[in-house]
Amino acid sequence: MEVKTRAPGKIILAGEHAVVHGSTAVAASIDLYTHVSLRFPSPSENDDTLIIQLKSVALELSWPISRIKAALSYLGCPFSSTPTSCSAESARSLAALVEEENFPEAKIGLASGVSAFLWLYTSILGFKPATVIVTSELPVGAGLGSSAAFCVALSGAFLAFSGSVNVDMSHQGWLMFGDNDLELLNKWAFEGEKIIHGKPSGIDNTVSTYGNMIKFRSGSLTRIKSDLPLKMLITNTKVGRNTKALVAGVSERSLRHPDAMSFVFNAVDSISRELSNVIQSPAPDNLSVTEKEEKLEELMEMNQGLLQCMGVSHASIETVLRTTLKYKLASKLTGAGGGGCVLTLLPTLLSGTVVDKVIEELESCGFQCLTAGIGGKGVEVCFDGSC
Amino acid sequence: MEVKTRAPGKIILAGEHAVVHGSTAVAASIDLYTHVSLRFPSPSENDDTLIIQLKSVALELSWPISRIKAALSYLGCPFSSTPTSCSAESARSLAALVEEENFPEAKIGLASGVSAFLWLYTSILGFKPATVIVTSELPVGAGLGSSAAFCVALSGAFLAFSGSVNVDMSHQGWLMFGDNDLELLNKWAFEGEKIIHGKPSGIDNTVSTYGNMIKFRSGSLTRIKSDLPLKMLITNTKVGRNTKALVAGVSERSLRHPDAMSFVFNAVDSISRELSNVIQSPAPDNLSVTEKEEKLEELMEMNQGLLQCMGVSHASIETVLRTTLKYKLASKLTGAGGGGCVLTLLPTLLSGTVVDKVIEELESCGFQCLTAGIGGKGVEVCFDGSC
Repeated sequence: MEVKTRAPGKIILAGEHAVVHGSTAVAASIDLYTHVSLRFPSPSENDDTLIIQLKSVALELSWPISRIKAALSYLGCPFSSTPTSCSAESARSLAALVEEENFPEAKIGLASGVSAFLWLYTSILGFKPATVIVTSELPVGAGLGSSAAFCVALSGAFLAFSGSVNVDMSHQGWLMFGDNDLELLNKWAFEGEKIIHGKPSGIDNTVSTYGNMIKFRSGSLTRIKSDLPLKMLITNTKVGRNTKALVAGVSERSLRHPDAMSFVFNAVDSISRELSNVIQSPAPDNLSVTEKEEKLEELMEMNQGLLQCMGVSHASIETVLRTTLKYKLASKLTGAGGGGCVLTLLPTLLSGTVVDKVIEELESCGFQCLTAGIGGKGVEVCFDGSC
Repeated sequence: MEVKTRAPGKIILAGEHAVVHGSTAVAASIDLYTHVSLRFPSPSENDDTLIIQLKSVALELSWPISRIKAALSYLGCPFSSTPTSCSAESARSLAALVEEENFPEAKIGLASGVSAFLWLYTSILGFKPATVIVTSELPVGAGLGSSAAFCVALSGAFLAFSGSVNVDMSHQGWLMFGDNDLELLNKWAFEGEKIIHGKPSGIDNTVSTYGNMIKFRSGSLTRIKSDLPLKMLITNTKVGRNTKALVAGVSERSLRHPDAMSFVFNAVDSISRELSNVIQSPAPDNLSVTEKEEKLEELMEMNQGLLQCMGVSHASIETVLRTTLKYKLASKLTGAGGGGCVLTLLPTLLSGTVVDKVIEELESCGFQCLTAGIGGKGVEVCFDGSC
């Protein structure tokens, strides 16, 4: 018996950093996915192990179910039909379980993800043997929401078997969850994100769950429906950044220059609102796709200037900007900045030859290029092995 | 009998473009000069020609005084103790005089400068033979105020002999004009600028006349006194730009995105005000030179981001930014953008080795690098041949 899920990554289209200071931001799903395959051993296999394989980072871990039970059941936690937060005590037990697996030093950053997996698995499905295989098209730690996609895909797979959601197991191909089920799934994924990030905003898991686009401001999220078929080039500079330090840097700059920075945050707020109006369908204005793309390019360029004004750009980001500018393409950093990923809008009418040339030039700088459709579906599930 | 003058170029430290939309801007003089030497033939030479040599552009023109007189005196214009505007009719006569000289096609852009020269010369000194030699350390058309420095240096030299200013001709070395004389000189220079630029802001000639720094907003200029010994690297990208198109582009963007752009202009206004507070002496706060430099660097970086948001950056400017960023130096475009010049603050404690390396790297990109002290003296005059 096998179930597969896939959950998309996300990008911030506008408003990163400024959102911390009260501005609107807009996030969108990308059609790059984290895939989860969940398989239970048949009774004849008489297996008693929980195995997780993280294919894209070449990590495999396994625990005897009895070991997990011993570590967790005394806390009275797992098995819960409503999403529950992992207590500090449970977190310690999970971390101990993960530690027993002797993580290679280089992969220690993934330990909290494995804790989240164990929490979600045992909370939703209890103590039963299974093999969970995770593959991902999303680079880890690049600001594309890989950890949220991981938690969403896991939650989707576990819930599909939990009996707490309604899914038609006889359906062929990818299947969307119902609205109530998505809400439950999103809450569970958020609990997983909390284990990984401490205080996540909830944006990444919400985008990965529902897909499409989301406008958010001061903690409140609004889903935006868009039929605009946007395509972005995502350039991963591979420059690691310290998100906390970058966020703190913007706050410090904002204390040093309160007037100027407050205008900057307000400008970003206007840009995010305009951008969400442009992509919203039915569109308030009757612009053609090309006109909309031009508007978006201008808004991206403006937002990038404001991010530079906040001081979160980086030489590697500037290199991407300069390169894409040569081809008259608009780019902006996405997420924390200081490295990470850069978005470049690929207009519908842009020739594939130009795209190939830009990618070739960017990759020759040592960057990783991904192209992605923007604002597609959220998490989906598949039962019949055809996916 | 010879008189020499020198008049400095200028840079915009903050607020270009936004100033058109009501924000404050700050300009400063740079210690790169346009030099004028004015020599009258001795009576024995019995010369009857007005000669101008523009050394830095290898252009020499001359007219018989009788020819100039015939072309202009019927208009009843020249000889005026107060600065007068060149009428459309006079402008046509001047242009005809200049045209007779068969300008090489490549230098046709200098024709209006020669008209301005003829206007200032004949208005202030009438119809007498002389040789005027102009040399300049300022690149032409790069936004460093070369035309204003030209008009200021010419006006200074002509006025020094006109009897309408008080200068001590027995003084040795460079000599400053008195305040009233500077006012007169500045007005004349402005008349020259009008011939060259149509509707100049008056900022360039004012900075070149008075030196130091000037804060301006909605047409009103305030001189700022600074004792801060600032040094800038000025990188001329040599990319020609169309200032009018760039200004129009910002206005159009501002019509398309009125809310966002209005916040952007307000942010620039705050930055210009902060910057002028930092450089003002006596300083309102007791910051060290290094602390002030750090503040200025941050404000320059912020202003540059906002200029990028207005859409007036250029690939060549980005190249300069990316290069100087590698050395942790802050840069911003100065003037119209779209090419032109980029400023990089050179902190007092920066080693000469680093400066040399930055310059070497920038020059290897085909750019021209100049280093300049900021906020120095305005126009000066010299009589004794020692200058």
